Parts: sequence; C-alpha cells; structure tokens
Amino acid sequence: MKTIAFVTYPGLTALDLVGPLTVLDPLSALLPDEFRTVLVGEHTGLVSSDTPLRIAASHTFDEVPEPFAVVVPGGLEPTIEAMSDERLLAYLRRAGETAEVLASVCTGSLVLAAASLLEGYEATTHWAFLDLLEKFGAKPVAKRWVSDGKAFTAAGVAAGIDAALHLAATLAGEDVARTIQFGIEYDPRPPFGPLNWEDAPRDMWQALRADALREGTAEAPDLARKLGVAAS
Amino acid sequence: MKTIAFVTYPGLTALDLVGPLTVLDPLSALLPDEFRTVLVGEHTGLVSSDTPLRIAASHTFDEVPEPFAVVVPGGLEPTIEAMSDERLLAYLRRAGETAEVLASVCTGSLVLAAASLLEGYEATTHWAFLDLLEKFGAKPVAKRWVSDGKAFTAAGVAAGIDAALHLAATLAGEDVARTIQFGIEYDPRPPFGPLNWEDAPRDMWQALRADALREGTAEAPDLARKLGVAAS
Repeated sequence: MKTIAFVTYPGLTALDLVGPLTVLDPLSALLPDEFRTVLVGEHTGLVSSDTPLRIAASHTFDEVPEPFAVVVPGGLEPTIEAMSDERLLAYLRRAGETAEVLASVCTGSLVLAAASLLEGYEATTHWAFLDLLEKFGAKPVAKRWVSDGKAFTAAGVAAGIDAALHLAATLAGEDVARTIQFGIEYDPRPPFGPLNWEDAPRDMWQALRADALREGTAEAPDLARKLGVAAS
Repeated sequence: MKTIAFVTYPGLTALDLVGPLTVLDPLSALLPDEFRTVLVGEHTGLVSSDTPLRIAASHTFDEVPEPFAVVVPGGLEPTIEAMSDERLLAYLRRAGETAEVLASVCTGSLVLAAASLLEGYEATTHWAFLDLLEKFGAKPVAKRWVSDGKAFTAAGVAAGIDAALHLAATLAGEDVARTIQFGIEYDPRPPFGPLNWEDAPRDMWQALRADALREGTAEAPDLARKLGVAAS
C-alpha cells in the first residue's frame, strides 16, 4: 500500500493542499489496494489556512512515519515560519529516508529545502520566491513543475493541480490520470487567457515577500541570517 | 461591506469550495473596506469533505443572514443529500431574497435549484449531471460558467476557479482579477492538454451518478421521485 501524506501546518495556502489532494485522492478510490491518502499534522485538531477556512489533519505525524510520498503545501509568512518548525522538519527528514517522492507546491519547496532535502536537486517554487532555493543548495528552475530524483516540486499555488496530474500518471498511468481530469472537469479556461509575465505585479510581491520573510523569521535568527533578512 | 458567504455542508467536494475561495478571498485583502469572506455552515465544528480533509466553517448560517453573495460547492451523494436538507435550503432561500449573487460550483447548482432559486434561469453543473437542472425549472447550458440574473453557476469542480476569476473581475475590475491570477500563478498547463470530450468516461459516471442519486435520496422520497430515481 502506497501512502500519500499531505503535510499540514497552521496558515498554509488552502489551494496548495486541496488542488493536489483532489487530483491524487481519487487514486485511493480507483485503485484501493494500491493507494491511500492521508493528511498529517502535529495534531488532528483545527488549524488555520490563508483564508477563513480552517482545516484538520486525519493523522498525526507519528501515525504515518513512513509514507510513500509526502506533499508539502506552501504559503506566505506561515510557511517561512514552518521552515524553522523543528517538529515539522524532523517529520520530513524521517519521512525523507524512506519516501520515494518528496513533493511540494509553491513555497512548500522552501520547507523541504529547510529540512535539507533538496541539496543538489533542481527545484521550483512560487515565482516571487524562486531565487531563495539557492540558499539551501537547490538549483532553482522556472518551470511549472520540476522532477529531479525524489524531489518533485511545483510552481505557485495552482501549479499544484498540473503537477499532481503528472504525478498521478507517473504512479498509475496516463489513462487513470485522464479519468481523474474528466472527473474534476479540469479543462481550464482562464477568462483573461494565460498570464503575460511582463505584467507580473513584481513590486507588490517584493513587498509581500519582504513582509513574509521578516515576520516568518522573527523568532528564528539563524534562518533570518540564511535568508538574508536584514535585522529591523 | 459586501459579504461573500461560502456555504459548507458535510461531504462537499473540497476543491469546489477552495478554488473559488482562493480566488475571491484576496478581494478582502486588496479591498478591505469593500469585501469580506466567510464560510457559513449549520455549525462551526468539523465536517467531512470528499477527501480525508475535514473542514470547519467560520460562521453559522444565523450569523450571516444577508450575504451579498453565496457560493454553493457541489459533490456527489452528500450534495444530493443536501438537496433535501431543510436548514440549508431555508438559509439559501432567505439569503436569496437579498443577495445579489447566487453562485455555485459543480452540482452545487442542484442545491440552488432544490431551493427553487434557479427557476427560469440558465444554469450549468458538472457535465454528468447537467440534464437534472431541467427538473427544477432551470435551463441547462453546457458552458464553463453561466451568468443569468442573480444566478452564476460554474461547471464541474475546477471550473470554479475560472468562474471565480470572472466574478472577481465583475466585482472589482479586471486589473484586480489579473493581480489575483498572478498571485495564485493560475497559468494552467494540464500535462495531457485540454479534455477531448469524445473520450469522456460516460459509463463510469452514469454509474457514479446513479449511486449518488439513489443513496442521496434514501431518506427523501419526494426528491427521489422528482429526480426520477427508481425505487430499489
């Protein structure tokens, strides 16, 4: 039985979690003898997300010590904070010894990086945070998703859906992945078309990033130094 | 202040909720004097979703009697069950008197329809359930999203993201909607391309639909009759 463990922590970006969860959880319905999906957390009580939605994990970290795959969602300040959450990092390091897939969505890759799991690997993250991966020995790549060894990292938020469909095909074949794509009617039609990256709101995101890094490292001076956050 | 109320109930499809929530909640950050996002439910304790994720609403129905907009997520059997949940329907009917937008994702439109809120309106839903809208006086339309009067309905699951971007532009302008699209990096790249509808797994979904209708109306004979569910 291959257990896919989605990692939860307070303040995560809900869609980073729910996009890939919605794509990969049907594997456990379509192939119940092969796949199992769980949400792991420090506890199974309510935690916040980046929206008014509160969520709860199905299992504690201790209950799922050896998942086949972990998927780490990202976020803003809470994710930077998670980069120095020793219980979360210890879980990822332990899981990383046996897991065959270490996946992330958005800035979730920074948490994998903080657990020293991306050293030497190509990886990606949200466009506004991409260069930070280098500070942890990973090689930043601006792609929708990047697969390198065990590391399977997706770009920002919605990229987790595309990446998870790719992963589903890798794990269970393209027919199964297409069946899931029909089920969730993933036939995207963004009303203003694809993004024109020349128009990206870079100044706004530089400010959001600076705030996230400063606030997320307020209690973690070593991480602040590593990330190059100026003392305030 | 315009309150956008996402409606929760046990067993809903998580992505139906979290897709549009992730698109529309940033309105309350970008325009805090104009928009507020809440999740309403019969209570604010944990409820299940279609995945191992459990969620909690932020407010009870009674606490948000007059939202500006409601968004009703869909699902399979639990959503059919919600079509005869009198407390949920009463909330939607009451909200429907003053709300300016009655939105849904996937089979959430069947719940709006069961509350008699789509009579005479064009509407859509998940592709495998589309014809059922007619039984409640709505006019089924096979589009990614359909806007008709107050009714704003999206097709299956992932269509809620596209529809919510359109709604965000309607409420706050296209620039704001594009800013949100960059934030969540919604630049879709489905690994196998768009869906080829000739290959849709129709037999599988006919069976899933039959199960959902039969199980979801087990305690609701009137609804079973209306939906044409054969007595077992």
